[in-house]
Amino acid sequence: MAIGLPIIALVFQVILLVFYTAFGSVENKSSFDFSMFEFTHLMIFVGFALLYGFLRRYTWTGIAQNFIIGVFAAEFFILYASIITWIHASAKPFEVRLDGEFLIRADFCAGAVLVSFGAYIGKVSTAQMLVMAAFEPLFYAVNEHLLVDMIKTIDSGGGLILHAFGCYFGLFASWVFSPEKGKNHKLNSTNYNSNIFAVTGTVLLWASWPGFNAALAGTDSYYAISNTVFGLFGSTVSAFIVSALINDGKLGMVSVINATLSGGVAVGTSCVILHQPGWGLFIGFVTGGISSWGFEKLTPWLEKTIGLQDVSGIHNLHGIPGIIALIFSLFLVSSEQIAPQIYGLLCTLGLSIASGAIFGLFLRLTHEKIGPEKFFVDEIHWIDCNSKQKSVHEPLMKPINDDRD
Amino acid sequence: MAIGLPIIALVFQVILLVFYTAFGSVENKSSFDFSMFEFTHLMIFVGFALLYGFLRRYTWTGIAQNFIIGVFAAEFFILYASIITWIHASAKPFEVRLDGEFLIRADFCAGAVLVSFGAYIGKVSTAQMLVMAAFEPLFYAVNEHLLVDMIKTIDSGGGLILHAFGCYFGLFASWVFSPEKGKNHKLNSTNYNSNIFAVTGTVLLWASWPGFNAALAGTDSYYAISNTVFGLFGSTVSAFIVSALINDGKLGMVSVINATLSGGVAVGTSCVILHQPGWGLFIGFVTGGISSWGFEKLTPWLEKTIGLQDVSGIHNLHGIPGIIALIFSLFLVSSEQIAPQIYGLLCTLGLSIASGAIFGLFLRLTHEKIGPEKFFVDEIHWIDCNSKQKSVHEPLMKPINDDRD
Amino acid sequence: MAIGLPIIALVFQVILLVFYTAFGSVENKSSFDFSMFEFTHLMIFVGFALLYGFLRRYTWTGIAQNFIIGVFAAEFFILYASIITWIHASAKPFEVRLDGEFLIRADFCAGAVLVSFGAYIGKVSTAQMLVMAAFEPLFYAVNEHLLVDMIKTIDSGGGLILHAFGCYFGLFASWVFSPEKGKNHKLNSTNYNSNIFAVTGTVLLWASWPGFNAALAGTDSYYAISNTVFGLFGSTVSAFIVSALINDGKLGMVSVINATLSGGVAVGTSCVILHQPGWGLFIGFVTGGISSWGFEKLTPWLEKTIGLQDVSGIHNLHGIPGIIALIFSLFLVSSEQIAPQIYGLLCTLGLSIASGAIFGLFLRLTHEKIGPEKFFVDEIHWIDCNSKQKSVHEPLMKPINDDRD
Repeated sequence: MAIGLPIIALVFQVILLVFYTAFGSVENKSSFDFSMFEFTHLMIFVGFALLYGFLRRYTWTGIAQNFIIGVFAAEFFILYASIITWIHASAKPFEVRLDGEFLIRADFCAGAVLVSFGAYIGKVSTAQMLVMAAFEPLFYAVNEHLLVDMIKTIDSGGGLILHAFGCYFGLFASWVFSPEKGKNHKLNSTNYNSNIFAVTGTVLLWASWPGFNAALAGTDSYYAISNTVFGLFGSTVSAFIVSALINDGKLGMVSVINATLSGGVAVGTSCVILHQPGWGLFIGFVTGGISSWGFEKLTPWLEKTIGLQDVSGIHNLHGIPGIIALIFSLFLVSSEQIAPQIYGLLCTLGLSIASGAIFGLFLRLTHEKIGPEKFFVDEIHWIDCNSKQKSVHEPLMKPINDDRD
Repeated sequence: MAIGLPIIALVFQVILLVFYTAFGSVENKSSFDFSMFEFTHLMIFVGFALLYGFLRRYTWTGIAQNFIIGVFAAEFFILYASIITWIHASAKPFEVRLDGEFLIRADFCAGAVLVSFGAYIGKVSTAQMLVMAAFEPLFYAVNEHLLVDMIKTIDSGGGLILHAFGCYFGLFASWVFSPEKGKNHKLNSTNYNSNIFAVTGTVLLWASWPGFNAALAGTDSYYAISNTVFGLFGSTVSAFIVSALINDGKLGMVSVINATLSGGVAVGTSCVILHQPGWGLFIGFVTGGISSWGFEKLTPWLEKTIGLQDVSGIHNLHGIPGIIALIFSLFLVSSEQIAPQIYGLLCTLGLSIASGAIFGLFLRLTHEKIGPEKFFVDEIHWIDCNSKQKSVHEPLMKPINDDRD
Repeated sequence: MAIGLPIIALVFQVILLVFYTAFGSVENKSSFDFSMFEFTHLMIFVGFALLYGFLRRYTWTGIAQNFIIGVFAAEFFILYASIITWIHASAKPFEVRLDGEFLIRADFCAGAVLVSFGAYIGKVSTAQMLVMAAFEPLFYAVNEHLLVDMIKTIDSGGGLILHAFGCYFGLFASWVFSPEKGKNHKLNSTNYNSNIFAVTGTVLLWASWPGFNAALAGTDSYYAISNTVFGLFGSTVSAFIVSALINDGKLGMVSVINATLSGGVAVGTSCVILHQPGWGLFIGFVTGGISSWGFEKLTPWLEKTIGLQDVSGIHNLHGIPGIIALIFSLFLVSSEQIAPQIYGLLCTLGLSIASGAIFGLFLRLTHEKIGPEKFFVDEIHWIDCNSKQKSVHEPLMKPINDDRD
């Protein structure tokens, strides 16, 4: 294991460097909407990072693995998508052409791979995650190409392309991987501060999401912004309601951190074609409640019943809301668009499940060789981490509050 | 209490869904400045959230109540403002018309309601706060309508409309509510980490504030940006100065977290008509010093003398700076604009005090029925919170530092 | 010491107020790119603040000193740059003219001064830092003027003007200052939570950096954005690789927090003239590895060998990457531009080293009078800080996890 991470990263990066240097070009896009790209970038590399800091003893590794997975997934996506574009338009010479849209699509792909990561966070090595970051974007890029260019599915915010794909890849990988030790692991848990880091990620994602759903929406971006704001309003309210109903009037932090965001996923597919704020609110409201119920009830039940381990509950935040996004889009598109929407769903499910299962096999086979002996602990990933470290030796002065608790 | 939160939230949301679905429409605004909306959104739902995480044992609840209050206040504002617009332009059919400006105004209203929240944070239930989020926006919307459309008060950054209104609503509600148990409560205090969360909220608010003050400023937005930057420079410097003078050369974190921001409020009213950077700096400088003094001296004195409890010190960050904003605007407007400015102040004070006092009565009456038995503790609001949780069981390895303090 | 901070701050602010009020004017720039300014502002006042919260017992002071240094440096820069502009265009009357570009340049200067701060964070008083914030921007402004207006060095992202200048000022100040007590101080260290605050700053800086490098790039801003994204991809990957190679397969948090960012510096000089994504990736990749090696090996060696104390390792994040930025630019500019690039480097080094050494002398002379007796402790800077404070008295209920660790 000692050299798995640096060797794999080096080999991958050299391959990418060769391709980028030999075939790369940049197109100056004065029409590039910098701020929408930026909020997308913030979501992937700051919001997701904090969200994946939720484990009590794994906050460092969660943030760092999010970082390196996101970077490699974006780099590999650009390569794969360039190859696909080249094959599709076969007469042109191959090039890695970086216009602004490519940067945003690369961040979307990184988002999908990071969704998958959530299913087995804490149980995988960084080296294994590098392999995922090279593997999954290939299938993501193929699926994106099929839906956008061939099937012509409407999905501007990536309800299918990003969330459903990333989720079912991750879930089937986790199911095939299925390490016994992950069950009921006592460190598969949160604490007071780790939840605060995660909920900070939540509100950052929540506030930035309108830019994310609008980033590829072109001139209709205001519809995407407005519907995303309302979809998130709806899911926040219903996440609070369902969590309080389940927990006898109290809230569960897992719902506040996650289910509040599900409205952003659920309006993702139809956010451009939806011209009625009540619908956005309604879609979000329905989804947030289902998502909250999923976190509090469904995920534990699935783990007990069919052995599906889903550490972050991506099924409730990305999978189910992605499917809901597709279902609602059927009511909003024209009748001839219904078939492309359904074909898009089937294509996404097929590709994500198949590729995810293959990756799960890889996780299973390499688990003993590459993977960490111990789960959910920062200490085995870091030279300088001791998560028990306290912050001071002794107070220099009496605290301002007498209650020194 | 057990079902107050979910039932009230459900009823409110269903009412809003009906209105939005029956009467809603979205207008595609290509001129919408996405980035200014975004930074406003970030301030309300991320900056405020972290700021309200300042209580040592109430960080979870502070963040979550900020979240749900903000969402409901924005939703109710859009409904009320649509009704007012409909009454004002009586010939047209009723509609909830979502152009981009509405989204920003809804966030402003959410900001005002969250200011009020600061006066009694830690002593109220989430269900009570839902009622506030439905009640206060009605009076906010009426006041906004009177000042903007009738009296024609100049107040683009909301010194009066947002900050003074939210503050005096909250202060009078707190005064009428006046729970004895809140005084000198030992958990009405901060600790090392909770102050770090709060100061992170401060710098985020501080850096984003130019977009907030400029969001409704139209083509003169650069003046608003520039003056807000300088107003915040000024208040930061004087907050440090006054805090150090009061505390014998040391700093008080309460000033650094709060008073540094007061310049953003104080330039809010005149930020568009002010074309001189020295004035913005001066207004901020004067305000920051007064605000810092208020936090360190005035708030404790008011609590002792007249029994006014103001948990977050909103009087010093929003009330006094809002009044200062109005006073300075008198020197900058034309002579015929002086009367509208003063009428705007009187209208704001009248409406906020009256409605706040009514809400305080509600808090007082429902306190025993709905409210929590215990103040300032996360545990009673959450199923999964134990704020004493530490982060690890035992170290897996020796820490890198020998001093294991 | 007790009154050093407020008196110095007051005198400085009054001087600035007089100048701004007497000579200030604002120009309404409708072309001002608000979002690029905002992300620059976020980097300086939020990202840097969190990054400087990395010390285990100095998080409060790190954040607060970052705040006040940034404000004063920006204010002084605008004054100095206005004077220089006035001298340069001698016929015009003196004015402090605030167009949008000035705000961004002021934030850049604040960035340089905050880079310098990193060399001696924890060992200096706030009053000493105020003097730095008045002193360094003068030389920064002169150097910026020489490089931009006279020598015509290409350096749009400030590889030389900001990073190298700030670094060598700080390093030589630290070297001349050279307090014995700083060596191997047991509180010159991090802990679990302080690293999380710092790495949150890292990802925020990392995600916002494209806007920073593009803010002054004008119509070619997309090149700057794209190259910065790729430069940061490269440095992130190599920081992980080198850190893992050095540490036997494990990661060092110091590399993840810092070296990952070095690609943003390294592409800063040539980000506008570079039209090939492979090159940006390559420059970042080379730099991140060197930077990571510097943090883990070079800085300790320099401290042991020549007594150079560099608390935050600014040499590895700003100095060396700034030099690398210049070297790579030589391969990308036209042949007649090579001389201006090299003269720019020499000018930057000369001015920063000379002014830094003078400031180091000031630190040395005032250390006993103004400076704190004790290093790296929040308690001596704050009235209300006790970093040992824990968060609760006793749990109100059993935690959800049985393992109460």
